[in-house]
Amino acid sequence: MPISTNSEGLGIASLAPLLAEVSKAFERQLASDLPPVNTLCRHVERYRGKMLRPTMVFLSGQAFGNVGERHVIIAATCEMIHMATLVHDDVLDEAEVRRKGSTVNHLRGNEVAVMLGDYLISNAFHLCSRAGDPALNLRLGEVTNTLCEGELVQLSHREDLSLDERTYFEIVRRKTAVLIGACCELGARLSGAPEDSVAALRRFGEGIGVAFQVQDDLLDLEGREDVVGKSLGRDLEKGKLTLPVIIHLARCTGVSRERTIAAIRARDGSALMAELTAGGALVDARHRAEAMVATARAELAQVPAGAARDALDAAALAIVHRDF
Amino acid sequence: MPISTNSEGLGIASLAPLLAEVSKAFERQLASDLPPVNTLCRHVERYRGKMLRPTMVFLSGQAFGNVGERHVIIAATCEMIHMATLVHDDVLDEAEVRRKGSTVNHLRGNEVAVMLGDYLISNAFHLCSRAGDPALNLRLGEVTNTLCEGELVQLSHREDLSLDERTYFEIVRRKTAVLIGACCELGARLSGAPEDSVAALRRFGEGIGVAFQVQDDLLDLEGREDVVGKSLGRDLEKGKLTLPVIIHLARCTGVSRERTIAAIRARDGSALMAELTAGGALVDARHRAEAMVATARAELAQVPAGAARDALDAAALAIVHRDF
Repeated sequence: MPISTNSEGLGIASLAPLLAEVSKAFERQLASDLPPVNTLCRHVERYRGKMLRPTMVFLSGQAFGNVGERHVIIAATCEMIHMATLVHDDVLDEAEVRRKGSTVNHLRGNEVAVMLGDYLISNAFHLCSRAGDPALNLRLGEVTNTLCEGELVQLSHREDLSLDERTYFEIVRRKTAVLIGACCELGARLSGAPEDSVAALRRFGEGIGVAFQVQDDLLDLEGREDVVGKSLGRDLEKGKLTLPVIIHLARCTGVSRERTIAAIRARDGSALMAELTAGGALVDARHRAEAMVATARAELAQVPAGAARDALDAAALAIVHRDF
Repeated sequence: MPISTNSEGLGIASLAPLLAEVSKAFERQLASDLPPVNTLCRHVERYRGKMLRPTMVFLSGQAFGNVGERHVIIAATCEMIHMATLVHDDVLDEAEVRRKGSTVNHLRGNEVAVMLGDYLISNAFHLCSRAGDPALNLRLGEVTNTLCEGELVQLSHREDLSLDERTYFEIVRRKTAVLIGACCELGARLSGAPEDSVAALRRFGEGIGVAFQVQDDLLDLEGREDVVGKSLGRDLEKGKLTLPVIIHLARCTGVSRERTIAAIRARDGSALMAELTAGGALVDARHRAEAMVATARAELAQVPAGAARDALDAAALAIVHRDF
């Protein structure tokens, strides 16, 4: 099985037919008899980019055996959950651009975006139910509960300059990492992996999930909007403290601290970047992400050697080296 | 079994222990290890008022046999789905008052309300999965898909003065009636009712559900905020055409039509009410609701005579006679 990372960095060439199945399942699930609903669904289908979550389901499955129809259902379900969070996150962030196109809220208003996100969540659960296994529904329901909790705790800490690293990582684990962890876990379990390997893959997925979010934090500060393809600077704008800022505030004092806090309060991205760069917090945040990826990769020792494991390893590395 | 309608008009005295079980299941499901999440959940728990949907699950079940743990799970799930729609509807409607208290969006902002609604939807599916029957997940997923479609179609018709009755009823069927229909259907099926009775009860539930929404339309126009207990006049404010307005616009011409359209565009509730009253549209809308309730009650012929059926009949009548 020839495995290679393509220009997207996370896609795996030989996964193409499976990912095409995911796209088909996605479109089939969202086909409505109502034209206004279909128009909206066509719009969000172009948000599907990296397909990181389906890729994790399939690779984790392939590492232990064959992948089948239920992998496709779970992969499409997880991607749809992810898509729903993007639509609602864009409402929360007042973002205007996503995947180099207008966001639903920008194009059609917050009300439509709220309802479309609900429609995607509802369809994700409906699709998952088609696998006919209550344990899958229960597990994914638990995952989305945790995800929403992460978002709610994050909201409760907006503008909170005393947010510490422990709370930050707990928010990120819940809002981003548990879903990626579940993709790896369920992909492996559906292919009959032993439970200790399933648990190792869940930890692998959660680890790269946290690193993925830290990289997102960095891109929101340092990225170029035309490369990343979405609205940037939203974290500062919406009073969300990100890892570089938390690291910096935890150790800087005096005038530098005052300048940093003033930059945050004034939503002054350039001034904040100057402080973070001078204090070394950007480099340190990147090192944290790299260390997490290294820990996650070590979990792969519990996965049989082979092309699928190599691809999981490559995907983990790609996460902290992406610029989009 | 003594059955009586209490002061709430829809609650049934002997259902009290079952409804208490629903409350317990509801609170157990929403108990989080995170204090900010718990505070929000305590707030929305006071939205639980009429408990119409759990009542329909239990009465439909009691009409055919015993009700048990799975009825409680489905009743709590449907009430949680309903609660999620209330939280997101209040965001869409920019409503400030619900059940005589502040709405989540008014108290904590739209962002928290969007996420809390998501948390409730997610928990509803998680709770439903606990029944361990994939058919229930599949059916309720279908119901929530339809519900969101109804909301999306309604949004696409905002400010649309040419909205016709057929489209209006299709929106209402989807966004309000299918969930109440599913409560009756699933309550009966879980108690072993024959499929033709299950279908009759689904039609009964959908019929009273549509009538319920028409009554809501009327209360939004004519109700007193201190009696209804929530923000009124929101339909006009948000450009939603309601049944009295649709009936009126379909038949009035000349100056009266111009005055009506001017009142809608100016968000002038008193002027609109004067037109609707003079044209008889309020009375006609009420007659439509009463006719629908009569059709729905006829479906009860397929339900065995007894106290549960009498209570379903009484609940149907109460829907068009409530002023809250």
